Amino acid sequence: MSLNAEAATAGTRADGRTVDQLRDISITRGWSSQAEGSALIEFGSTRVLCTASLTAGVPRWLRGEGRGWVTAEYAMLPRATNTRSDRESVKGKIGGRTHEISRLIGRSLRSIIDTKALGENTIVLDCDVLQADGGTRTAAITGAYVALAESIRFARENKLISASAQPLLDTVAAVSVGIIDGAPMLDLAYVEDVRAETDMNVVVTGSGKFVEVQGTAEGAPFDRDELNALLDLALLGTSQLAQIQRDTLG
Amino acid sequence: MSLNAEAATAGTRADGRTVDQLRDISITRGWSSQAEGSALIEFGSTRVLCTASLTAGVPRWLRGEGRGWVTAEYAMLPRATNTRSDRESVKGKIGGRTHEISRLIGRSLRSIIDTKALGENTIVLDCDVLQADGGTRTAAITGAYVALAESIRFARENKLISASAQPLLDTVAAVSVGIIDGAPMLDLAYVEDVRAETDMNVVVTGSGKFVEVQGTAEGAPFDRDELNALLDLALLGTSQLAQIQRDTLG
Amino acid sequence: MSLNAEAATAGTRADGRTVDQLRDISITRGWSSQAEGSALIEFGSTRVLCTASLTAGVPRWLRGEGRGWVTAEYAMLPRATNTRSDRESVKGKIGGRTHEISRLIGRSLRSIIDTKALGENTIVLDCDVLQADGGTRTAAITGAYVALAESIRFARENKLISASAQPLLDTVAAVSVGIIDGAPMLDLAYVEDVRAETDMNVVVTGSGKFVEVQGTAEGAPFDRDELNALLDLALLGTSQLAQIQRDTLG
Amino acid sequence: MSLNAEAATAGTRADGRTVDQLRDISITRGWSSQAEGSALIEFGSTRVLCTASLTAGVPRWLRGEGRGWVTAEYAMLPRATNTRSDRESVKGKIGGRTHEISRLIGRSLRSIIDTKALGENTIVLDCDVLQADGGTRTAAITGAYVALAESIRFARENKLISASAQPLLDTVAAVSVGIIDGAPMLDLAYVEDVRAETDMNVVVTGSGKFVEVQGTAEGAPFDRDELNALLDLALLGTSQLAQIQRDTLG
Amino acid sequence: MSLNAEAATAGTRADGRTVDQLRDISITRGWSSQAEGSALIEFGSTRVLCTASLTAGVPRWLRGEGRGWVTAEYAMLPRATNTRSDRESVKGKIGGRTHEISRLIGRSLRSIIDTKALGENTIVLDCDVLQADGGTRTAAITGAYVALAESIRFARENKLISASAQPLLDTVAAVSVGIIDGAPMLDLAYVEDVRAETDMNVVVTGSGKFVEVQGTAEGAPFDRDELNALLDLALLGTSQLAQIQRDTLG
Amino acid sequence: MSLNAEAATAGTRADGRTVDQLRDISITRGWSSQAEGSALIEFGSTRVLCTASLTAGVPRWLRGEGRGWVTAEYAMLPRATNTRSDRESVKGKIGGRTHEISRLIGRSLRSIIDTKALGENTIVLDCDVLQADGGTRTAAITGAYVALAESIRFARENKLISASAQPLLDTVAAVSVGIIDGAPMLDLAYVEDVRAETDMNVVVTGSGKFVEVQGTAEGAPFDRDELNALLDLALLGTSQLAQIQRDTLG
Repeated sequence: MSLNAEAATAGTRADGRTVDQLRDISITRGWSSQAEGSALIEFGSTRVLCTASLTAGVPRWLRGEGRGWVTAEYAMLPRATNTRSDRESVKGKIGGRTHEISRLIGRSLRSIIDTKALGENTIVLDCDVLQADGGTRTAAITGAYVALAESIRFARENKLISASAQPLLDTVAAVSVGIIDGAPMLDLAYVEDVRAETDMNVVVTGSGKFVEVQGTAEGAPFDRDELNALLDLALLGTSQLAQIQRDTLG
Repeated sequence: MSLNAEAATAGTRADGRTVDQLRDISITRGWSSQAEGSALIEFGSTRVLCTASLTAGVPRWLRGEGRGWVTAEYAMLPRATNTRSDRESVKGKIGGRTHEISRLIGRSLRSIIDTKALGENTIVLDCDVLQADGGTRTAAITGAYVALAESIRFARENKLISASAQPLLDTVAAVSVGIIDGAPMLDLAYVEDVRAETDMNVVVTGSGKFVEVQGTAEGAPFDRDELNALLDLALLGTSQLAQIQRDTLG
Repeated sequence: MSLNAEAATAGTRADGRTVDQLRDISITRGWSSQAEGSALIEFGSTRVLCTASLTAGVPRWLRGEGRGWVTAEYAMLPRATNTRSDRESVKGKIGGRTHEISRLIGRSLRSIIDTKALGENTIVLDCDVLQADGGTRTAAITGAYVALAESIRFARENKLISASAQPLLDTVAAVSVGIIDGAPMLDLAYVEDVRAETDMNVVVTGSGKFVEVQGTAEGAPFDRDELNALLDLALLGTSQLAQIQRDTLG
Repeated sequence: MSLNAEAATAGTRADGRTVDQLRDISITRGWSSQAEGSALIEFGSTRVLCTASLTAGVPRWLRGEGRGWVTAEYAMLPRATNTRSDRESVKGKIGGRTHEISRLIGRSLRSIIDTKALGENTIVLDCDVLQADGGTRTAAITGAYVALAESIRFARENKLISASAQPLLDTVAAVSVGIIDGAPMLDLAYVEDVRAETDMNVVVTGSGKFVEVQGTAEGAPFDRDELNALLDLALLGTSQLAQIQRDTLG
Repeated sequence: MSLNAEAATAGTRADGRTVDQLRDISITRGWSSQAEGSALIEFGSTRVLCTASLTAGVPRWLRGEGRGWVTAEYAMLPRATNTRSDRESVKGKIGGRTHEISRLIGRSLRSIIDTKALGENTIVLDCDVLQADGGTRTAAITGAYVALAESIRFARENKLISASAQPLLDTVAAVSVGIIDGAPMLDLAYVEDVRAETDMNVVVTGSGKFVEVQGTAEGAPFDRDELNALLDLALLGTSQLAQIQRDTLG
Repeated sequence: MSLNAEAATAGTRADGRTVDQLRDISITRGWSSQAEGSALIEFGSTRVLCTASLTAGVPRWLRGEGRGWVTAEYAMLPRATNTRSDRESVKGKIGGRTHEISRLIGRSLRSIIDTKALGENTIVLDCDVLQADGGTRTAAITGAYVALAESIRFARENKLISASAQPLLDTVAAVSVGIIDGAPMLDLAYVEDVRAETDMNVVVTGSGKFVEVQGTAEGAPFDRDELNALLDLALLGTSQLAQIQRDTLG
């Protein structure tokens, strides 16, 4: 076995976690009083404000098909990180990383939406990172699900969709996993993320199926055993996150 | 007297305040663990996250003069408001209102800074509106002062400036005032702001001098008496905000 | 009294003016043969070409309300100033100062317009600074009023609005005032503007009411006495400008 | 002969000119008090403000070669024309036509400059169309030459180049010619330009040599005889413009 | 005669051609299986992929007039040239040269189109330079004609225009000519182009009439004799290109 | 087993391939005579031109570390696809998909580069899709490897790196796999790609290790068995592509 089993069993992480342990997860539902749905989600020191904006109607290319639309935008405050970054609004263009993550969040949430049941409504999920310490995209997906679920509850209560419509097919959550010094680990903090040889973001439904698997060799390429060990950890983490989501939504 | 004295004395505001009463003000110092200084400030439902990023060095045009630089950037999350706005990063350009407020915040804070005492350091104040209910620019100035003061304390503790340097000449705070149905009122919430005939933002130092007076007739032009009544209210409000700033900073 | 009364009475200005004296003001009505209204205005060496473009119809967000729209755009030729600036078109974005002034001009002119009487027509005021020597925004507002009035006369003569419609509620003019070496002064030229401790732009109707009061402490904050002295000067200057506007329009 | 000889001899132009007659040409040297050289040039109702900005140094790619640089930027005020155009600064990009004309002006003026004699100095020619009635690019080239010559005189008087340096190798002027209803005509006004089957802009030195020949079939393609007739007219017009330039510069 | 007759008769070109000889010309019709018409054209080492995209409908400003529209876009791959250039998409704006050439190609092709016969259809010609060795714009025009003709054949075969409609009035081709060391030469390769004193691009119809004549003095201005010698060469080259176009289209 | 085994064994693909069969693969090495390395790669009808531009020096942030840099840019010609898309240069910004793929190609190639052995040199890989029929990003990676290898050979032959330096640690290739009607399939053409329930791009080294695994549920989420079946196919395909790369490079 190519994995560093000793590191994997010993509790050597900087913050004292075991390799298969999530950081402290906190979800504050309804943090915003303006949006139809919202959640402030924390994965340790990572804090993402997720809002769901629901409006009647769909983009032009989808009109008249009786289906709704869910999309997402991800962004980071300039001083969410340890050193300040220039604002993308000031630079006048959106960077590749931002684009990539926005698209990932949107796809992830659409995977558990029945757009027919949503009717011709649009939900935009804004995920703004207020503080970043690794795993911002996975926190964003996990929090955006809560905001999305709230906005659908809002839609039902306000008769924007029928009382019997069930646009949510499942829940969805995401976590990062990686290999550090040969050991697979769950939910990387920033100091771990920069050292990881392999970094993987995994998006999983409440019923345990994959929505996205994005594994990248940052250092040496990885083999099938490593891939499998990472997937095991990811399924463990996302099942715990799914439980927290259910608890939050009541 | 041209003012609506009855309205001004009667407590007729939507949220039950008297005309000369601030909303509940809350300042959470150190809300961010990443920035050299930070504050989450709330004027009622208006919430602005202010961070101060301190770096050695100054912009090219200021090099070699032995003086520091303080600047600010203001922005609003897309769903800070009641309906969602497109992101300026997505539109690829910054709107006039954003530019205008960023410049106002920067000027306001520079007015109480001794740039010689700051040395060749730059402090960028990011004021991001997380939730908007009127008065975001005045909350931003008031909160940015706290973040700024924290970052200067940080600079002194970390020997980035000498222990005896006093870059802060005074404190600074801001409040909006306006005339609604003929009555001058302090600290307008959004529902008041949109109805105001005249809207004024006033930036005042802790010692009670004006840094900025920006009065605009949204409806009918205003006369000298109205202007004076608004300035009286603004001085009252900013003196209370200055006290809260002092209490927050200890 | 905190003001420098001696300087204020002595005629010590670079161009020999007294502290309460406007520069030579010249307004050439109809300078452009293309626009519905136009004026080349000069405040000393400051020259601004103002054109009013009147078109039927209003922006989408105003349609069907039976009201018109007035807006403004301000810009400066690259070599209007003593050293050349890059064009905003070449930079691909509009700077904060340009945005801010365009918005100020638009608000100022809307303050004296009865949009109902204007009908569903749009007037765009372009204020292009051909030569800059301080006070370009106040010259722009004062000249734009003349172009606006001309375009409304054009509209009436060409039956675009009814003969009895009176879209102009009043006249409007603007002037800058400032404190230099402790002395309040009227209509600052560029060499004065850069030395001013406090700089204020005041927009006043023909009937002497305030539309905008924008005072900024460039150096030390200012007190109430200083503010009042500046407002007195501004009212003096704008009343003279209003007379010149009336003379120009015949 | 394929040309409409009758039309060419009859004086049938809208403004009463003969086919080989320039519009009234006026050049006001030194119109701007800010620039090192300037000229307001008028070809009939077409008015272009040309300024020359001279600075020490050259662009990075030219450094250390002991040669200077001359470049140009052309732009049009939004209401220079009969209907208002959006500003390129507002659109955030420069149109193809603007780019094309800026490049043409720059090449035309560089053709008569000895960059060695200019030394490592840069001259930027800004040609801003204040009013447009056809022929704006040719007026711009003709006026820019005057501004350029003035700026070189300024450089010599201020010892920025040596008293004996002769950066100007020749003069340069430009005119438009075109075929309308089969008749070749000189210096087209806007109403003529839009009707022209063939439109040609010709840039010629004071000694009668070609710098640019840009002929375009707007309607039917043109033959060699037509081309020759147009070139004859262009040489006639530019020789007259060259004389006016010499008279203006004294 | 001012031309260098000896050089003009001696075969002194780097690639062994005579002064009046085209490079090897190759046109691969139908290179793309996606577009309605396409051609890969080679002028020696210069390779341009031309595609014609035909769609029903016309731009808004042309609707309802029963006429079609033909336009073109030119671009260069970043490593088409000897050193890599930044992508215009990455820079976020299109350069002046690109704009200028796109407009030239569009005008050239519209000159031989009967837009009435085309009906309300739009054809966009994309000319992408895969490899550049001088003459890319003239190769693009010559190749775009072939793609255009193919797309019209496609339109006729697919009943998008009537069987009897003849939108093509003529053929069109283009070639560059220039003066090098005093000798006029045909179809300049890159090493020749950079040395040319005068550079001219000439667009000519199959029937030998001029569509565009764009001559530029890169070094010394040119006289009438030189101009005539260049035009002679251009007519020779374009007549050969027209024959190759006819052979290609069968 | 949840997979559609029958479909997987039956040869039901539109182009007659079996489910585990690549399209016809063609790599033309040295297609460009301008670049230091180049390859025109074809996966069936998908055609991508890959060039490698090698320059001395590295980006500013990497200077002085004795390491090289490899990066990539992906783009598509406007009519590479069945309907024309607007150019990103014309739109003035790069889309999310383009950004995402450029980053993927860059990471993939850096994974097999020893940047120390490369020295302070930069290689930019431009991957321009000339014709698109599915799998453009995987063709781009596979072709870019060939261009990269060529450019390193060029560097060695031209003494830009030492004769003994081995910057290439391995080869790298990529392929898409997906599940269509329940059957896992290799190397999807466009008509298959749009129907796939799950779509995965896998980047694998010549030694069979993973560099990137990017799996996305386009329709229903996928389970572990499906993931494994897809990975098996991907490893089969990339091992064949690695052989073709070796054969091409000789």
